[in-house]
Amino acid sequence: MTRCDLRVGMIGLGALGFPIAANLRRADVLMRVHTRRRNRSLQGTIACATPADAAKGVDVLVVCVSDNAAVEAVLFGADGASHQLTAGSVVVDCSTIAPATAIACAQRLAQRGVHYLDAPVTGGTEGAKAGSLTVLVGGDPAALERARPVLEIIGGSIHHFGAVGRGQQVKAVNQVLVAGSYAAVAEAMALGQRLELPMDAVVTALQGGAAGSWALSHRANSMLKSSYPLGFRMSLHQKDLGIALDAAGDVNLDLPVTQLVADLENGLMEQGHGDEDVSALHRYYHTKS
Amino acid sequence: MTRCDLRVGMIGLGALGFPIAANLRRADVLMRVHTRRRNRSLQGTIACATPADAAKGVDVLVVCVSDNAAVEAVLFGADGASHQLTAGSVVVDCSTIAPATAIACAQRLAQRGVHYLDAPVTGGTEGAKAGSLTVLVGGDPAALERARPVLEIIGGSIHHFGAVGRGQQVKAVNQVLVAGSYAAVAEAMALGQRLELPMDAVVTALQGGAAGSWALSHRANSMLKSSYPLGFRMSLHQKDLGIALDAAGDVNLDLPVTQLVADLENGLMEQGHGDEDVSALHRYYHTKS
Repeated sequence: MTRCDLRVGMIGLGALGFPIAANLRRADVLMRVHTRRRNRSLQGTIACATPADAAKGVDVLVVCVSDNAAVEAVLFGADGASHQLTAGSVVVDCSTIAPATAIACAQRLAQRGVHYLDAPVTGGTEGAKAGSLTVLVGGDPAALERARPVLEIIGGSIHHFGAVGRGQQVKAVNQVLVAGSYAAVAEAMALGQRLELPMDAVVTALQGGAAGSWALSHRANSMLKSSYPLGFRMSLHQKDLGIALDAAGDVNLDLPVTQLVADLENGLMEQGHGDEDVSALHRYYHTKS
Repeated sequence: MTRCDLRVGMIGLGALGFPIAANLRRADVLMRVHTRRRNRSLQGTIACATPADAAKGVDVLVVCVSDNAAVEAVLFGADGASHQLTAGSVVVDCSTIAPATAIACAQRLAQRGVHYLDAPVTGGTEGAKAGSLTVLVGGDPAALERARPVLEIIGGSIHHFGAVGRGQQVKAVNQVLVAGSYAAVAEAMALGQRLELPMDAVVTALQGGAAGSWALSHRANSMLKSSYPLGFRMSLHQKDLGIALDAAGDVNLDLPVTQLVADLENGLMEQGHGDEDVSALHRYYHTKS
C-alpha cells in the first residue's frame, strides 16, 4: 500500500462502516468519526457529535450509511457535513442509494466546490474487514484520482464506470444477480432436501458446471444446515432490490424474477427474518408446504 | 484411460448422443448404433435399423434420447432393445427423464436380468465432445462398476447418488440452479444495457464476487451480443424444468422462481426460440417494454 497523506473523516460505523473505518485507522489516515450509534466509537480517532464536526478539515470524507434519507441527512441536515466541507475535498459515498439521489448530492456539493463520488461496494462484512471490497465508482475522474489512495485502503479493486450515479447503477445490477442466484440455490437445496438426496455430494458434483455460482459454493452449506449467518443482511438486500426495481421501472423495464425474489424477501421480513443473511430465502421453502 | 473390453451399443445420435458415440467409437468399444435420424450414422460402427438390432450381443447399451416416451419406445417398443438384451447386460440411460420413468424402466428390465442405470449428464455438447461430462448415476453399485469403463469414456466425473432415479433427481436439482442463475444474468444484463452501462467492464467487476456464476462468466457476453449459440437448447431445459417441477409437486413443494422461469421459457418457445440456447431468456427483456 502506498503511503497516504490525506486527512480522512468517516460517517457511519455500521456492519460495513466499522471495518472500513478500522482499516482507515490502521493506515493512519482516519482522524474524525461520526456515528448515530451512541455506543460505538473507534479508538485512536476523534469521536464527533455531528456529521459537520466529522468533516472539519478533512480532504476526503467517507460516508457509509443505510439509505437515501440517511445520506441526505448527514450531508445536508442542520448539522450536516456540507457545512464544513471545503472546496476541493471529496466525499466518497460507500452507501447503496438510488442513482438519482447520488446525482442530486453531487450537484448540491458541487455548488461549494466539493466533489462527490458514488462508491458502493460489494464483498460484504468479510470483504470490508479484509480490505478486499470491490468498489464501484461513479464521478469525476480527477476526484477519483484524488481519493484513490483512500479507496485502495478500503477495497481490493476499484472500478470506474463513468459519471456520478454509474456506481449505484452497477450495484443495482449486482443485486439483481445476487437475487436470482441466491434464489436458485434456495430452491435447489429445498428440492434436494425434500427428495432426501445426499446434498453435500450433490453440491460437490454440480458446483463445477453450468449450475455453479458463488452462492452455491458459499451459501448452500449454511442453507442445508438451516443456519444463515451474516454475510449480507436480507433487509439491506431487499432495500437494494427496491433501488434496482425503481431503476428498471424508470427505463420501462420489467424484471419479473427480481420482483418475485423481492416479494419473497418482503414476506420473510414480515416474519421477522430481515436481520438474517440473504440465504435465509431458503426459509420460504420450509415454512410453506 | 484404462482399456475397456466391453461391447457397447448406442441408441440416439442427437446433440449429446453423437459426440458421446464418437468418443465410444474412438475408444474402440462401440459396435452397433441405432438412431431415428435417417441421415445420421457413425463411421466404423454398424448402423442398425431398430433399437433391438443395436442391442444384439452388447454388454452395455447406452441410451441418449429426448424424453420419457422415447426411452420407453426404444427399450420396450415392438422393436425395442429389451427384446435382445441378455441377462447381466447394463443399460446406461443418459437421457433426462422423470425419476419415476427411470424406476419403471429398471423394474421391467430387471425381470429379464438386465440392469438399468439412470445416468443423465451435465456439461452440454462441449462436455460431450471433450468426454468431460459430469455423469449423475442412480442404480445398483455392481452394475455401475460393470459399466464404469464406459462411463469413464463418456464423462470426466462419475457421481453415484443411490438407487435408480437418484441420478434424475440430481439432474432436476441442477436444472433448477441453471434456471435461476441464467435468469439472473438475463435480467442483470438487460438492466445494465437499458441503463447504457459499459457492460463488459461491469461483468468483469462483478464476476469475482457474490454475484458470480458460471452463467455470468460464460453466457453474459453472448447475451450482450444478442446471439445465443448452443450451448444447451432451451426446449430441452424447459422439458427438464417440467420434470423438476413435477418432482417438486410430488413432494408438495412450491418452487415459484423455477416456475416463473419455466413460464418465461414457454413464452419464448411459443415465439419460436426453443432451438436457441437457454441464454436466449435474455430475449424476453428486449421483446417486452
